[in-house]
Amino acid sequence: MCGIVGVFCNDVDLTPHITYYALFSLQHRGQESAGMAVSGVGVNLYKDMGLVSEVFSNKILSMLKGNSSIGHVRYSTTGQSRIENAQPLAVKSRYGSIAVAHNGNLVNYRELRKELEIDGKVFHTDSDTEVIVYLLSSYLLDNDLETALSMLTKKLMGSFTLTLLLNDMVVGYRDPMGFKPLCVGEGEFGYIIASESCAIDSVGAELIRDVRPGEAVIIEDGDLRFEKIAGSDKKCVCVFEYIYFARPDSVIDGRNVYRVRYNIGRTLAKESPAEVDLVSPVPDSGTTSSIGYAHESGKPYLEALIKNRYVGRTFIIPGQENRELSVKLKMNVLRDNVNGKRVLLIDDSIVRGTTSRKIVELVRKAGAKEIHFRVGSPPIVSPCYFGIDMSTREELIASEKSVEDIRRDIMADSLAYLSLEGLLDSVGIRREDLCLACLTSRYPVPVECAMKC
Amino acid sequence: MCGIVGVFCNDVDLTPHITYYALFSLQHRGQESAGMAVSGVGVNLYKDMGLVSEVFSNKILSMLKGNSSIGHVRYSTTGQSRIENAQPLAVKSRYGSIAVAHNGNLVNYRELRKELEIDGKVFHTDSDTEVIVYLLSSYLLDNDLETALSMLTKKLMGSFTLTLLLNDMVVGYRDPMGFKPLCVGEGEFGYIIASESCAIDSVGAELIRDVRPGEAVIIEDGDLRFEKIAGSDKKCVCVFEYIYFARPDSVIDGRNVYRVRYNIGRTLAKESPAEVDLVSPVPDSGTTSSIGYAHESGKPYLEALIKNRYVGRTFIIPGQENRELSVKLKMNVLRDNVNGKRVLLIDDSIVRGTTSRKIVELVRKAGAKEIHFRVGSPPIVSPCYFGIDMSTREELIASEKSVEDIRRDIMADSLAYLSLEGLLDSVGIRREDLCLACLTSRYPVPVECAMKC
Amino acid sequence: MCGIVGVFCNDVDLTPHITYYALFSLQHRGQESAGMAVSGVGVNLYKDMGLVSEVFSNKILSMLKGNSSIGHVRYSTTGQSRIENAQPLAVKSRYGSIAVAHNGNLVNYRELRKELEIDGKVFHTDSDTEVIVYLLSSYLLDNDLETALSMLTKKLMGSFTLTLLLNDMVVGYRDPMGFKPLCVGEGEFGYIIASESCAIDSVGAELIRDVRPGEAVIIEDGDLRFEKIAGSDKKCVCVFEYIYFARPDSVIDGRNVYRVRYNIGRTLAKESPAEVDLVSPVPDSGTTSSIGYAHESGKPYLEALIKNRYVGRTFIIPGQENRELSVKLKMNVLRDNVNGKRVLLIDDSIVRGTTSRKIVELVRKAGAKEIHFRVGSPPIVSPCYFGIDMSTREELIASEKSVEDIRRDIMADSLAYLSLEGLLDSVGIRREDLCLACLTSRYPVPVECAMKC
Amino acid sequence: MCGIVGVFCNDVDLTPHITYYALFSLQHRGQESAGMAVSGVGVNLYKDMGLVSEVFSNKILSMLKGNSSIGHVRYSTTGQSRIENAQPLAVKSRYGSIAVAHNGNLVNYRELRKELEIDGKVFHTDSDTEVIVYLLSSYLLDNDLETALSMLTKKLMGSFTLTLLLNDMVVGYRDPMGFKPLCVGEGEFGYIIASESCAIDSVGAELIRDVRPGEAVIIEDGDLRFEKIAGSDKKCVCVFEYIYFARPDSVIDGRNVYRVRYNIGRTLAKESPAEVDLVSPVPDSGTTSSIGYAHESGKPYLEALIKNRYVGRTFIIPGQENRELSVKLKMNVLRDNVNGKRVLLIDDSIVRGTTSRKIVELVRKAGAKEIHFRVGSPPIVSPCYFGIDMSTREELIASEKSVEDIRRDIMADSLAYLSLEGLLDSVGIRREDLCLACLTSRYPVPVECAMKC
Ligand SMILES: Nc1ncnc2c1ncn2[C@@H]1O[C@H](COP(=O)(O)OP(=O)(O)O)[C@@H](O)[C@H]1O
Ligand SMILES: Nc1ncnc2c1ncn2[C@@H]1O[C@H](COP(=O)(O)OP(=O)(O)O)[C@@H](O)[C@H]1O
Ligand SMILES: Nc1ncnc2c1ncn2[C@@H]1O[C@H](COP(=O)(O)OP(=O)(O)O)[C@@H](O)[C@H]1O
Ligand SMILES: Nc1ncnc2c1ncn2[C@@H]1O[C@H](COP(=O)(O)OP(=O)(O)O)[C@@H](O)[C@H]1O
Ligand code: SF4
Ligand code: SF4
Ligand code: SF4
Ligand code: SF4
Ligand SMILES: [Mg+2]
Ligand SMILES: [Mg+2]
Ligand SMILES: [Mg+2]
Ligand SMILES: [Mg+2]
Repeated sequence: MCGIVGVFCNDVDLTPHITYYALFSLQHRGQESAGMAVSGVGVNLYKDMGLVSEVFSNKILSMLKGNSSIGHVRYSTTGQSRIENAQPLAVKSRYGSIAVAHNGNLVNYRELRKELEIDGKVFHTDSDTEVIVYLLSSYLLDNDLETALSMLTKKLMGSFTLTLLLNDMVVGYRDPMGFKPLCVGEGEFGYIIASESCAIDSVGAELIRDVRPGEAVIIEDGDLRFEKIAGSDKKCVCVFEYIYFARPDSVIDGRNVYRVRYNIGRTLAKESPAEVDLVSPVPDSGTTSSIGYAHESGKPYLEALIKNRYVGRTFIIPGQENRELSVKLKMNVLRDNVNGKRVLLIDDSIVRGTTSRKIVELVRKAGAKEIHFRVGSPPIVSPCYFGIDMSTREELIASEKSVEDIRRDIMADSLAYLSLEGLLDSVGIRREDLCLACLTSRYPVPVECAMKC
Repeated sequence: MCGIVGVFCNDVDLTPHITYYALFSLQHRGQESAGMAVSGVGVNLYKDMGLVSEVFSNKILSMLKGNSSIGHVRYSTTGQSRIENAQPLAVKSRYGSIAVAHNGNLVNYRELRKELEIDGKVFHTDSDTEVIVYLLSSYLLDNDLETALSMLTKKLMGSFTLTLLLNDMVVGYRDPMGFKPLCVGEGEFGYIIASESCAIDSVGAELIRDVRPGEAVIIEDGDLRFEKIAGSDKKCVCVFEYIYFARPDSVIDGRNVYRVRYNIGRTLAKESPAEVDLVSPVPDSGTTSSIGYAHESGKPYLEALIKNRYVGRTFIIPGQENRELSVKLKMNVLRDNVNGKRVLLIDDSIVRGTTSRKIVELVRKAGAKEIHFRVGSPPIVSPCYFGIDMSTREELIASEKSVEDIRRDIMADSLAYLSLEGLLDSVGIRREDLCLACLTSRYPVPVECAMKC
Repeated sequence: MCGIVGVFCNDVDLTPHITYYALFSLQHRGQESAGMAVSGVGVNLYKDMGLVSEVFSNKILSMLKGNSSIGHVRYSTTGQSRIENAQPLAVKSRYGSIAVAHNGNLVNYRELRKELEIDGKVFHTDSDTEVIVYLLSSYLLDNDLETALSMLTKKLMGSFTLTLLLNDMVVGYRDPMGFKPLCVGEGEFGYIIASESCAIDSVGAELIRDVRPGEAVIIEDGDLRFEKIAGSDKKCVCVFEYIYFARPDSVIDGRNVYRVRYNIGRTLAKESPAEVDLVSPVPDSGTTSSIGYAHESGKPYLEALIKNRYVGRTFIIPGQENRELSVKLKMNVLRDNVNGKRVLLIDDSIVRGTTSRKIVELVRKAGAKEIHFRVGSPPIVSPCYFGIDMSTREELIASEKSVEDIRRDIMADSLAYLSLEGLLDSVGIRREDLCLACLTSRYPVPVECAMKC
Repeated sequence: MCGIVGVFCNDVDLTPHITYYALFSLQHRGQESAGMAVSGVGVNLYKDMGLVSEVFSNKILSMLKGNSSIGHVRYSTTGQSRIENAQPLAVKSRYGSIAVAHNGNLVNYRELRKELEIDGKVFHTDSDTEVIVYLLSSYLLDNDLETALSMLTKKLMGSFTLTLLLNDMVVGYRDPMGFKPLCVGEGEFGYIIASESCAIDSVGAELIRDVRPGEAVIIEDGDLRFEKIAGSDKKCVCVFEYIYFARPDSVIDGRNVYRVRYNIGRTLAKESPAEVDLVSPVPDSGTTSSIGYAHESGKPYLEALIKNRYVGRTFIIPGQENRELSVKLKMNVLRDNVNGKRVLLIDDSIVRGTTSRKIVELVRKAGAKEIHFRVGSPPIVSPCYFGIDMSTREELIASEKSVEDIRRDIMADSLAYLSLEGLLDSVGIRREDLCLACLTSRYPVPVECAMKC
C-alpha cells in the first residue's frame, strides 16, 4: 500500500512543492520512504527513508526544477526496509528517461522476473516495480504509449496503479480491475494525478474525476487527455480503501469515504443493536462509523479512549520487555466516561485480535459494566495479494475462529461484525465491481502462485 | 508550559523507562526539549532538543541507572530555542546534587536575578529555573528541606510547580497558589509524581491524589510523605488547563478534564443555541465540547474537518511563500458533510483569530449555508504571566475587539463565547480557587513588573 | 581513480573486517564513497558517501557475514557526487548475483551504452561500471567465466581493473593494457586481491604477485588460480601511479613506489642541480623525491613547509571570500629554515600551477634568498582518459606554456622538470610497457571520441 | 592540553572567521571539542563536540558577529568526554558577561572548589575552569581587572593560561610560572592572542611577542597593552611543548620549535651514535629530530615507516578483537628501505612503550638487521599535573624500569634517551626557567594533593 502522485505545473519552481504537498497529504498511505522524480533539464530523482517532511527540505526541493514530476510514499510491506526499494524507480534507455511510481502488487511477479531473467535482463532491486519498468521500457521502444500500456496490461497480473514520468510526459494509469484508486485534479498551476482526492484538495485544485479502471490519463505539452487502454469484464475496486485505508476526506470512485464509514456505522446499528449507555470509537479508525452508529441507534456518542498522538511510525518503546508497563502508552481510558456503564466499542476491522483484546481489558478495568464490540467490516478470512498487507505480518484471527470464539478471545460481552450485504449497502458500489477477496476468499485473479513471502 | 515528572522505583534499571513513559505521556505539554536526571552512582543528566522519542534511545536509557529521577519536557515560550534552556537543571554544591524541573513562570524573575547578581551570583543560563536552583541551593545549606521550601516560597512570585532530585531524594512541590497541576501515583514499581494523571495511568500506576497548593510530596528512602509547606489565602488553579492544555484523559484537582470540556459544550448549547444541521469540532481541541454541545442541543455531531495527523511540531511547509497552496495542508473539509448545511463549529478558544477565519473560509467554500462559531471559553483579553504562552507570540484579538467585530473578522454568521459563569459551572471549582486572569484581567499577583518579553 | 578489493576468508565473521581494513589502506585512492558486497546467505551490499571509517560501523560490518566479498573506494572525478554512483554495483540475473568494483575509465563508454540502449537495455546509473555489468552479465549467461571475460575484453576500450563477486566466487581482472594496478596476497585467513600491496600488508598477508595485464585471478571454493584471459601487444602501466597516486609503501608490478620516487629525486639532482642551502619537499607528495635529491646532491634535506594535517577531504574554509587570510591555513613556512637561504623545493608534478605559485610566494615572504623549483615528472601536457582525473577540474598549465613561462608564472628563480628519460630510468620499466600519454600526448588507444565531460 | 585564542577585529563579520582559522591551526592541541564566544550585541557562545571544521559551519559563523572573541579547542584528558566540559565557559553576573578559555590544570582545584562550596557556590560542571570563572567573577565585582587577576593568581596553584572575554574586552593571561605558552600578534584586521605562533601566521598576522609569565595582554576599545600582574621567583615553561606538543612551525618564548627538535636530533647523534645504514623517524613526531640526527651523524635520512594519514581522532578500528590483523593499519614498513639494513629509529618520547615495541617488531619482520632506538627526550618518570595528560591514561614505562629493561621490552638492539643536559642545550632555555618535572620528579609546586582522578 503506497501513495502515488503525478504533477504538471506551469511554474518550474512550483512543481516540486506541489508534489511535496500532495505526498504529504498521502502520508497515511506510506511512512517508510518518500521520493519524487522531476523532469526539467533531464530527470532528477530524490528519495530517502523517512516521512515526507523528513526526506525533503526546502533546499532539496529548490534543486528539483521542472514542469513535470511524479512522487511516491512507500509502506513497508515486508521486513525489507531498504533504500533500494524506495520509489520512484528511474532509468534511462533508448526511449529516454522513464520513472515509475507504483501502488499495488503483481501476483505473477516471480514468473515475470524469471522470464525477464531468461531473456537476459539484469535486476538491481527486489521490487516488482523493476519488472514493470523493464517491460514498459521494452514496449515503449517500438510502440506508442497506448500500445505499450496495453501490452503491459496483458502481461501483468495483480494490481498496478501507476504514475509515470516518460521524459517530460506525465501519465497516470490504473489497471483494468482498478484495485487501487487514482484520480485527477486541475488547479491554477496545472494538473495533478493522485491516489486520493485529499491530495488534490491539499494543493487547492479541483477534482476532475477518477481515472477509470483500464484507463490512462496523459499530460503532454500541458494538455491532459484520458485514454481507454484496456477493458475488463469485471471491476475490482478494493473495498478496504473505504473501510480502513483511505483518508476519510477523500472521495474514491465517486463514493465519499466518510459517508461510507458513517453508513457502515448506521448499518451496524441496524444489524447489531445493543442496550448500551454510550457508543465509542477505537480511535482513530473507528471514529466515523461510531458516529454513524450513535446517530442511528440514538445512543450517545462519547469517547472511551484517548490515543496518544505522538505514537508514530518510528515510535519504539524503549524497554519493550516491560510490556506490562508499556501497554497504556498508546491509549488511555476515559474512566469517568465508562465507569459503571455499558459501552459499545467500534473499530473498523479486526486483524489479529491482539489490540482489540487489550482495549477491552483496559475499558473493563476502568469499570465498564458491559463491553459490546462492533466491527465495521465482515471478518477478514483471507490474505490480500493486491497490495494491502494484512497477512504477512500476522495471522488473521477470523481465518480460523468463529465469531463466538473471537468474542471469547477478546473478552467482550458481545461481538458483531458487519454483514457483507451491509457493507455493500454502505459502500454503494455493485458487488461485481468490488474486490472482496479478503472477506470472501474468492480472488478475482488466480493467486496460487502468488504466495509472496 | 512544560511537563514535569518525578519517579522513585525499586528497580534501578526500570527507573529511566518509567520516567520515559511518563514524559512521553506529557509530550503535549512541551515538544521542544526533553530531559531527565537520574540518581544512581551520582546524578546523571541527559537532555537534548526534540521529542521524548527522539532524545532518548534504549542505549541512553540503559546508561541512566538509579532509583530516583526527575524529568522534564519543555515548551518553547520564546524564540530562545536553545539547549542551554533545556531542563532539568542540575548542579552540585556543598549540599550535594540538586536537579530541578520547573513548570511555571516567575513574575519577579528579573528582580530576583538582580538581587542574586548583587550578591555575587553568576548565571549560566537565561532561565528563571536557575534563580530557583540558586535560592534553593543556598537555603538547603543551613535548613532542612521543609524550611528551605518555605523560604523559597516567600521569595518567589508567580507560578512554580517543581520536581526536585536532591541527592537521591525525590520531591514534588506546588506553589501555594497552585497555578500548575501536580499529582502523585503509586504502582508496583514505586511512586510517581507528574504534571497530569495521564502520566500515572501510562505507567500502570494508580493516582493517590493531587499535590495541594503549598504542599510538598517527599520520597525518601522509599517512603512517601506529604508536607504542608506554605498556606495561602487564595488558590489560583489555571482554568486553561481544563479549557485547552491538559490531556482530556487527565484528572486535575479532582476534576475530570474530559468532563469539564463536555460540560462546556453543554453549557454553550444552553447559552448560545443555534438553528443548525450539525455540530462540528475544530479538531482536536474542539472535539470534546462539540460532543457536549451536540448532546445538549439534540443536533447531530458530525465532523466537518479532518486534520492531517502528520502536521507536527517540526513541520515546516517548504515554500511557505506559496501560502495560497499551503493553507489546506493542515485541515481539509468534509465537503459532503457541510455542503448546503447550517454548520455549528466549536473551538476551545480564539487567540489571534487567524486560524478561525481560515477555517470558516474553508467550510464556506465547501458549500456551507450558514456557519455558527462557538467558543469554549470567554474571550481571552489579557496575557498570561504564569507560564501559558498566549501573549508573546501574537496579539489577542479579543483584547481590542468586540465579539461582533471578531465575528465579522472571522466571517462567521454568528459567534458566541462561553460566559464566565458558564465556565465556572462547567469546571465545578469555586471562582476564588481559580486563576481567570487572562479572561478577566484581574491578576492574582502584581505583574506590572513582569512584562517578560 | 578508485581503490578496489576482493577477499576470500575462511571465517565468515572476519570477511567484512578484512575488507574494511584493506579499503581503509586504500583510502588515499578515493575519499568520496565506500562500499562492499559480501556473499553469505545471498549477496549483501552496503555503500554510502564518505570515508571508509564513516561509512562502516562495527554494527554494519557484523551484519555482512560471508566468505567472499569485494569492496570499493571512489574518487569523485566529476561533480556527480551521488550515492547512485557509489560502488560496488550489484545486480541479479539468470546467472545469479553479480557485483562489480571498477577502477578505470572506458573511453568507448558512450558508444557501448548507445549500443546497449539500442539493444533495449535500461540504465539505472550514469557510470561506465553499469555497462561493464550488463555486458558481463550477458556473456556469463552462455559462457564460462574465462570466455565471458575474454568477450568483455574485446568489447571494452580504455582502462578497467575489476574485482567481481559472482555468486560466491571472487575474481580480480586487469585489462590487457594493465593501466591500473592489481595484486594478490595470501594470509592465514585466506586470500586478498587489492589495488595496491599496502592493503595486503595492512591485513597481515603476504604479496603473492601482481595480476598481469590481461590476466584474471579466480578464487573459487577456497582455491585460487590465475588465468590468462587476453594477450596484448603492448602493456600500458600508468606511470602516474609511481609519480603521485600510489602510497609510497606499495609495490606495483614489481617496482617499489618509494624507491621510484627516491630515484626520481636522485635523477633530478643529476639532471638539474642547483647551488642551494637546503632541499625541501612540498609536503606530502614531494617528500620522497626530496630525500633522493638531497642524498644525490649532498645538500641537506630540511623542511621548509608544514602542512596542517587536519586539512581533509571535507575541509571547507568558512569565509573563503577572505582569501587573503585563508591562504596560510593549509601550509605554513618554517621561517627559520628558509630565511636568508637558497631553497630548493620539490613537488611531484604541476597541474594548474596555482598551488606552486602560492607556495613560492610564501617561502619568498619568509625571507628565502633564492627559490629553485624542481618537479618529479615531465610536464603534464595532455589530459588522462584512463581514470586519473587531472584534466577535468582544471587546465594543465604545461599544455600551453613553456617551462620558462611557467617559471615566471610561479615566480621561482629556476624551474626544472624531470626528463622523460630520467623518469623511465627512475621507474625501471620499459618505455613500451608504460602509459605516458599525459606526458607525451601519444595515447595508447584512440580517444578522440572519449572527451568525457 | 588545549588551545586557546583571543581576537579583536575591526570588522564585526570577520571576527568569527579569524577565530576559526586560528583554532583550526591549533587543532593539534585538542580534537575533542571546539568553541568560541563572540561579543557583539551581547555575548554569543557556540561550542560542540568534534573538530573545528565539524563544529563550525559558515552559517554558524555568520551568526556570531562582534569585534571581540575568544576560542578554545579541548583535548580530552579524562574519560569525561562531555559537552558540559567544552569551553569557553560563559556566564553573566553583576559585572556583566564573562567568558573564559583555559589551558592548564589547577593542582589545588579540589580545595578551591570545596572552599567555594562552603561559601555557598553552586557548580554546573566538573571542570576547574568553573572555579576560575567563579573566583574571577567575584574579584571583578569590587576590583579593577589588574587587581582581580592578581588576586586570582594568588589563589590558583598549577598552570593556567587564559583568554578572557569580559564584556567586549579581550584579555590574555599567563600564570606567573608560565607553564603553557601564549603569544600576541597584530594584523591588518586587528589583534590576535593564541597558544602558538602558528595561529598568528595562519591569519596573516605578525607575531608581536610572547606574553610573559605573570603578564596580561589587554585589548580594550581597540587598544592593546601589556600589564605585569604577578612576579615569580621562577619561570617554569613546559619543556614538552618543545619536545612533542607544539607544532614544529611555532615559535615559543623566542625558541623555534623546529630548531629545538632539530637540535635534539643533533645532540642525540653526538650523545648516542650508532653504526647504522639509515636514520628513520617514527612519524610524525620523530621526523624533525631524525633529520637533525642524520645531519649530525652523516648517516642518510630515509623513511622506514609510512603512517596512514586517515588514522584520526575518531578512528575506531572495527573488530578490534582481531588485534593481529589491525596492528598494521596505522603504520606500514617500507620493507625495501630496511631489509638487510641497520636501522636507527627516533621518536620524540616513550610513554607506555607499547607502540614502540610494535614498531620495532614491524621493522624487524621486514628484515632489518639491527634496530637502534633513540628517544628525543630523557625518560618520562613522573606524571604531569599541569595539563599534559601523559599519566592518567597509561603507566609510564620509565617510572619503574631501567633503560636496559625498556630496551629488552621493546626488543631493540640498542636504546638511548637524550640526556637532560642535552635537552637543555637543545632547547636553549635556562634550566631554572623550565618545567622538567615529568623528567626529574621535582615539581615546581606542591602536588601531593593533586592526584586528580
Ligand atoms: N488525517 C487523518 N485524519 C483522520 N483519520 C485519518 C487520517 N489519516 C488517516 N486516517 C484514518 O486513520 C485510520 C488509521 O488510524 P488508527 O486507527 O489510529 O491507526 P491503526 O492503523 O493503528 O489502527 C484509518 O482509518 C485512516 O482512514
Ligand atoms: N493525546 C491526545 N488526544 C487527544 N487530545 C489531545 C491529546 N493530547 C493533547 N490533546 C488535546 O489537543 C488539543 C490541542 O490540539 P489541537 O487543537 O489539534 O492543536 P492546536 O494546539 O494547534 O489547537 C488540546 O486541547 C489538548 O487537550
Ligand atoms: N599514508 C600516506 N603516507 C604518506 N604519503 C601518502 C599516504 N597516502 C598517500 N600518500 C601520498 O600523498 C601524496 C598526496 O598528498 P599531498 O601532496 O599532501 O596532497 P595533494 O594531493 O593535495 O598534493 C601522494 O603522493 C601519495 O602517494
Ligand atoms: N601540522 C603538523 N605537521 C607536522 N607535525 C605536526 C603537525 N601538527 C602536529 N604535529 C606534530 O605531530 C606530532 C604528533 O604526531 P604523531 O607522532 O603522528 O602522533 P602521536 O601523538 O600518535 O605520536 C607532534 O610532535 C606535533 O608536534
Ligand atoms: S483482498 Fe481485500 S484488501 Fe486486498 S484488494 Fe481485495 S478487498 Fe482490498
Ligand atoms: S492567566 Fe489564564 S492561562 Fe495564565 S494561569 Fe491564569 S488562567 Fe491560566
Ligand atoms: S595518461 Fe597519464 S595518468 Fe592517465 S593512465 Fe596514462 S600515464 Fe597514467
Ligand atoms: S611536568 Fe612535564 S609535561 Fe608537565 S608541564 Fe612540566 S615539563 Fe611539561
Ligand atoms: Mg485503528
Ligand atoms: Mg486547536
Ligand atoms: Mg601534493
Ligand atoms: Mg608520535
